Amino acid sequence: MSHGICLIGAGRIGLIHAANIAATDGIELRHIVDPVAEAAARIAGQCGGQVTDLETALADPAVHGVVIASATNTHADLIEQAADAGKAIFCEKPVALDVGRTEKAIARATARNVPLLLGFNRRYDPDFAALKRRTSEGLIGDVEMVHITSRDPSPPPVSYIKTSGGLFKDMMIHDLDMARWLLGEEPAFVTAQASCLIDPQIADAGDIDSALVTLRTASGKLCQISNSRRAVYGYDQRIEVHGSLGLACAGNRHESTVRINTGSGESTDKIQHFFLERYASAYRREVLHFRDILDGGTEPLTSGEDGLRALVLAEAASRSFLEGVTVAL
Amino acid sequence: MSHGICLIGAGRIGLIHAANIAATDGIELRHIVDPVAEAAARIAGQCGGQVTDLETALADPAVHGVVIASATNTHADLIEQAADAGKAIFCEKPVALDVGRTEKAIARATARNVPLLLGFNRRYDPDFAALKRRTSEGLIGDVEMVHITSRDPSPPPVSYIKTSGGLFKDMMIHDLDMARWLLGEEPAFVTAQASCLIDPQIADAGDIDSALVTLRTASGKLCQISNSRRAVYGYDQRIEVHGSLGLACAGNRHESTVRINTGSGESTDKIQHFFLERYASAYRREVLHFRDILDGGTEPLTSGEDGLRALVLAEAASRSFLEGVTVAL
Amino acid sequence: MSHGICLIGAGRIGLIHAANIAATDGIELRHIVDPVAEAAARIAGQCGGQVTDLETALADPAVHGVVIASATNTHADLIEQAADAGKAIFCEKPVALDVGRTEKAIARATARNVPLLLGFNRRYDPDFAALKRRTSEGLIGDVEMVHITSRDPSPPPVSYIKTSGGLFKDMMIHDLDMARWLLGEEPAFVTAQASCLIDPQIADAGDIDSALVTLRTASGKLCQISNSRRAVYGYDQRIEVHGSLGLACAGNRHESTVRINTGSGESTDKIQHFFLERYASAYRREVLHFRDILDGGTEPLTSGEDGLRALVLAEAASRSFLEGVTVAL
Amino acid sequence: MSHGICLIGAGRIGLIHAANIAATDGIELRHIVDPVAEAAARIAGQCGGQVTDLETALADPAVHGVVIASATNTHADLIEQAADAGKAIFCEKPVALDVGRTEKAIARATARNVPLLLGFNRRYDPDFAALKRRTSEGLIGDVEMVHITSRDPSPPPVSYIKTSGGLFKDMMIHDLDMARWLLGEEPAFVTAQASCLIDPQIADAGDIDSALVTLRTASGKLCQISNSRRAVYGYDQRIEVHGSLGLACAGNRHESTVRINTGSGESTDKIQHFFLERYASAYRREVLHFRDILDGGTEPLTSGEDGLRALVLAEAASRSFLEGVTVAL
Repeated sequence: MSHGICLIGAGRIGLIHAANIAATDGIELRHIVDPVAEAAARIAGQCGGQVTDLETALADPAVHGVVIASATNTHADLIEQAADAGKAIFCEKPVALDVGRTEKAIARATARNVPLLLGFNRRYDPDFAALKRRTSEGLIGDVEMVHITSRDPSPPPVSYIKTSGGLFKDMMIHDLDMARWLLGEEPAFVTAQASCLIDPQIADAGDIDSALVTLRTASGKLCQISNSRRAVYGYDQRIEVHGSLGLACAGNRHESTVRINTGSGESTDKIQHFFLERYASAYRREVLHFRDILDGGTEPLTSGEDGLRALVLAEAASRSFLEGVTVAL
Repeated sequence: MSHGICLIGAGRIGLIHAANIAATDGIELRHIVDPVAEAAARIAGQCGGQVTDLETALADPAVHGVVIASATNTHADLIEQAADAGKAIFCEKPVALDVGRTEKAIARATARNVPLLLGFNRRYDPDFAALKRRTSEGLIGDVEMVHITSRDPSPPPVSYIKTSGGLFKDMMIHDLDMARWLLGEEPAFVTAQASCLIDPQIADAGDIDSALVTLRTASGKLCQISNSRRAVYGYDQRIEVHGSLGLACAGNRHESTVRINTGSGESTDKIQHFFLERYASAYRREVLHFRDILDGGTEPLTSGEDGLRALVLAEAASRSFLEGVTVAL
Repeated sequence: MSHGICLIGAGRIGLIHAANIAATDGIELRHIVDPVAEAAARIAGQCGGQVTDLETALADPAVHGVVIASATNTHADLIEQAADAGKAIFCEKPVALDVGRTEKAIARATARNVPLLLGFNRRYDPDFAALKRRTSEGLIGDVEMVHITSRDPSPPPVSYIKTSGGLFKDMMIHDLDMARWLLGEEPAFVTAQASCLIDPQIADAGDIDSALVTLRTASGKLCQISNSRRAVYGYDQRIEVHGSLGLACAGNRHESTVRINTGSGESTDKIQHFFLERYASAYRREVLHFRDILDGGTEPLTSGEDGLRALVLAEAASRSFLEGVTVAL
Repeated sequence: MSHGICLIGAGRIGLIHAANIAATDGIELRHIVDPVAEAAARIAGQCGGQVTDLETALADPAVHGVVIASATNTHADLIEQAADAGKAIFCEKPVALDVGRTEKAIARATARNVPLLLGFNRRYDPDFAALKRRTSEGLIGDVEMVHITSRDPSPPPVSYIKTSGGLFKDMMIHDLDMARWLLGEEPAFVTAQASCLIDPQIADAGDIDSALVTLRTASGKLCQISNSRRAVYGYDQRIEVHGSLGLACAGNRHESTVRINTGSGESTDKIQHFFLERYASAYRREVLHFRDILDGGTEPLTSGEDGLRALVLAEAASRSFLEGVTVAL
């Protein structure tokens, strides 16, 4: 038997999930909901499913799971509606841009006893997953320090930045989740410095585009995160985990393995351009994980609670930067 | 409109093609033909299409293309039958193990004016394709020397080896095709040395498991090919192209990007294990290419003629090894 | 004509400088001064020069330069004595562990008009020098962020740590100098977090062994520094410079280029073990630079002033860590 | 006590050896002999020793060893004169360009019971030595195949080529020695193909500039050697040893570790330019080895006999190429 899925949100990320659902045994795309009917219809044409409204979709007993890939400000409401309908939920991050609203939505899912998978896609990246597995196996002893480099190829439009919640909540939140996961312990102190180096319009919008954040746990483990909205050489996603017995790193992949040696040195192709390329298999594995959750017996690897904790860290980072203090949690 | 496809041969490689056909817009798996009905049925269950006999499938006017993935000794006959039925052909290598039979089958496809795509999958590997593109763009000047390393993780069963045609025709034929492609000129001289180093049963079966072949073109370009039936570290597929202005290489990919540094040095994951992993995207691109051929306007990148020429080189290599001479073509 | 050199301090680093002086044209080791006569005699035996007391050495008109490689708490006094004697000075870092004493010693050298070269050896490392040259040439546009990883293979004895001035002044001071050099602008804000993760005796001695520091310049350039007293895999010395047009990195070198591929993956030799290996050529180039200074016409690349500014940053880092604030300079 | 050395030949390679002798404890440069007195005097000025004639030098009882770095056609005579004088010999390769003369000179050294170290410098390269050590330790099981890539940055003057003995004896002879060493067994079959691709004047001089040679031992081990007189990207010196349990490789080193990532990909510095850079430490270690031989108790790692065997292989390669046959030894 196949679990029916309702996809809410027919944008770029919605299309990725739809295609992965269509290619995954055991789940089936039944409904696509989006205010822009043509967008929903296009996905239906490519990946199957029918264009419906939310009410109809949630009323369909064959729908076991809801994938929320709509605008950020709709997430919390949709989580609550899906929870009330008793559907398992896979929601793109964030639940909401503020802590209170996030807690309330999570509480509803808990109350309704539906699983809530939050889309922290990086944990599903095969390279980062291998990094986590190796460190969990003890290959590098006790984890002591984590270095996270996370840089986008180019900044989003300023219009997007204005409603994004700012770099810490919009971009670094992924890295904060990775930090928690790899440290294996909650950060207790947060320090941030940041700048607007790329585009003064980003500063005009009240945001920064470059940031360095340091975390420290109660036992003294340390983590540094480096973010920039611009890396002209591609999507730079690297992590180092330093332990008592060694160092484990996971890095970027190049567009091809071709290397050229000439009179001016050796050169290789660029690294993968952006998240669509880098995290293509992460998105596939994330949908497989949602399928396994629907099958029962598996808890979400990235839950609403994970989203909440990362959000709290992002807010602490923001406050540290603005007030010039190390924030204790 | 979608081109109907008949798949002949429901083994391991047939399944790969079936899955790729199912995932490709513009073509559709309609028939699966195999003497082992369960094998055919399993593919039909996974990828669609119906299990039929050859006659029915070739009589279906919605079938525009035939994919031949059956046992080697059936290829030539099937090519001729498909050609007589006016179907475009995508045949796994080789057409046949002897030159005369190969020429005859190719002639039939030519006479019937149907395209014949031969499955030299490596030309469709994105890394090797990028290598070819860069050298064609002149980045390393005139091509002068090509080094091809091609090593399997472990030898096939001796029973397979007995009917394989031997290492030169079965395994090195891929490298001989790559050599021709990358040299951009036909080899005129062939020299070979070889040994049985891995398993004496292979020698008992009249074959060798390790071989070095050197090619020289009329203008003096040189190529060396190194083959082994065993590379315990994975499927070692590397090519270097040396030119008047530089060197271009394409290499292996590792299972992950994770690197571990400990007191005993730095280590990485293994390279991809075998052809199913390494050439997964090559197989996808090959099916896309067949679709484009069916759409018209595109000639096969790897034709029956390419298969014939590689076969002639393989026979020359075999003779060079046995007689201890450089064979002029 | 050759410049006579007086070496003060016949320990491990004194021996390195002595050997480099002996191998450098245009300078000559004339005197070795050390309270431990045997240590001085051993260097004289290996590298030439005679064992003397400081007074005699400074009175020798053939001595043009003094190399100070004695205990840290003697540096400032020796700088002043050498300056009074009109000798050019090459002093190991630091001038002193407090700002006032440092300023006073520098002022004396300035007043006497003698060059004062401070031993920030990393700027002379060929790889880091190449990194600086490339970024200065504009290959990566405007410098925006610098990431410095600097980890020792194992902690020094706790007895050393007790008189070292602490991690920030003893170890990170090198990285703070590199940060200033590569940013091309003075840091204006300093933030630090730190822990004792390796050895509780280090905490008992009032120090930390793991630290993350963030710097920000007035124009918003950012730098992060990661220090640990332990990296079991070797001396980890890497720098990344991110700019508006790209990224430039310089890294570690391995003990050999040998790579082994087996059934368990690919492995390489360790990285160079510690500073004696990693900075061997830096020390040679540093002595060559001192020779060029003695020849006239060249200013010290790393001056007493550089030592002072790095010390101020180290103190700010220490204060930031202790008080939990971002320190503005 | 120090062993006195007489250096014969004050050219480029003579200067390298002189500098290394001067920097090595336990040996001392006493005499420099060269028909060009200024060349000899220049080395004496830099490295010590006095300019003498051969007779005087050989009559000096303090001379224990002779380093022969003069023109190739003088080597055999000088070996014999040094042997008659009872001096240990370190002679640049080759002993002579023909087998008979080589055998005669070696016999004389044997008869006089003096050690004869032949300058196959590559065996002293730390990376290749590490490669040999690892394979000898059994890390990759039994050696089965060796791949040697050896390419010069640019061809020597045609005038040099005319008296060089040709590519096989002049250039590939180094690789033939490495092949014997790494195979651990004598080649029994030799096959060659070659071309003149770089400069037609080389063909006019009766030589080739690009060659591929294949070796096979009696037990079936295989080796391929690729030579070119031109590699615009630098001195390309790489070796792969394939064994029953894995692969061991040693490769090139880059001029720096700096890597640049920009919008057009990743680039690194060139590999080391030529033998002076690549084999600088090999030459140092070679002189240390000669010192150890003079001290007694150590046999030459690379003997006259090794030179003879490599010469025989070079002649076989030449014959294989000219006659189009695999030559059995």
